[in-house]
Amino acid sequence: MLTLWGNLDSGNVYKVRLLWSWLGLAHRRVDVAQTRGEPSTAAFRVLNPIGKVPAVQLEDGRLLAESGAILQFFANGTRYWPDAAWDQAEVLRWMFFEQYSHEPYIAVNRYLLAYAPSRDAFDDERVRRNHPRGVQALAVMEERLGRARWLVGDAPTIADIALYAYTHVAAEGGFSLDGMPGIARWMARLEALPGHIGLLQESAVEVVGFSA
Amino acid sequence: MLTLWGNLDSGNVYKVRLLWSWLGLAHRRVDVAQTRGEPSTAAFRVLNPIGKVPAVQLEDGRLLAESGAILQFFANGTRYWPDAAWDQAEVLRWMFFEQYSHEPYIAVNRYLLAYAPSRDAFDDERVRRNHPRGVQALAVMEERLGRARWLVGDAPTIADIALYAYTHVAAEGGFSLDGMPGIARWMARLEALPGHIGLLQESAVEVVGFSA
Repeated sequence: MLTLWGNLDSGNVYKVRLLWSWLGLAHRRVDVAQTRGEPSTAAFRVLNPIGKVPAVQLEDGRLLAESGAILQFFANGTRYWPDAAWDQAEVLRWMFFEQYSHEPYIAVNRYLLAYAPSRDAFDDERVRRNHPRGVQALAVMEERLGRARWLVGDAPTIADIALYAYTHVAAEGGFSLDGMPGIARWMARLEALPGHIGLLQESAVEVVGFSA
Repeated sequence: MLTLWGNLDSGNVYKVRLLWSWLGLAHRRVDVAQTRGEPSTAAFRVLNPIGKVPAVQLEDGRLLAESGAILQFFANGTRYWPDAAWDQAEVLRWMFFEQYSHEPYIAVNRYLLAYAPSRDAFDDERVRRNHPRGVQALAVMEERLGRARWLVGDAPTIADIALYAYTHVAAEGGFSLDGMPGIARWMARLEALPGHIGLLQESAVEVVGFSA
């Protein structure tokens, strides 16, 4: 069975869990949480040298890290990774946009405001400076989703999973989705897909603790 | 002919220029520079709503942004984007690692120390906090390149281009590559490939200014 290292409230871990739920793939989860400092331990860095969740182990023992790479690997050969070269590039465009221009502002502010064990003046200033950049990322999404049902083509892809994960909890980072009807309709559409699970909805067959 | 929007000293723009040089593809370049505030103008956002370079226009008029997506689109069908599903995921793993765990520390410190028009106390603290994270990213690369010739498999891929771009100028961000012989050998190997061009080596058939 597939093994997933990560915590339930992480949007990056949720991306993997949501795709696996869409695909009907069973997994066990090892509960590794940044708030407990576990991803940066030596024991975890054997699995992922960069010290971040999610990390995944296949049944044959191979390990894969980075949510975007995990999504592409499991979507490859399914309807969620399109065949056409241009569509593949567009999917990756949105996924790189998410990791570089969306996650560092929207997910980081959510982490700092709702999950970080402690915050200092630098982090407070960081939250303040991140805010307009997160708003801009949401505006870029609204520009697309105000005139299209899905981010790429006319069907859901892993680009939609990648951007849904932190967008649907943007309020926890102090971001309002009021006045973004395209995003609201897109989220409702995605939530109505067969196999949908919520961020905090456990989907593992078994959950075990992590020991460093 | 392909059109590339971006400045010569940007590592993200260089990734595209280096792949096109490997592939022998001619292009014209529109000189758009962050230091002149051009990517955030309304005129540029028509091309790329997120206001960042590089952006590329194909001969048929289609526009593509995000360096990683551009690399995958042009490498698709060439030796630089492998056929095997596992290798594709590994290439993307390194490319997402670059954008999320390498570029925000190594490239951002290079920008703040060597290119930013002005810097305040927040940015100085940011440079200081970024430093150990950049060092860790280089250690992750060294761990791989101390025992392998290329990041993925046994031949160069777009993962190598993605990580070479800012690693080879890491010193401008205050990062030393001393004591990282695997990275040094890998850089020399990459620089010896046919079609190599330097970061500041103009490769466009024509360069035009940007008018907002």
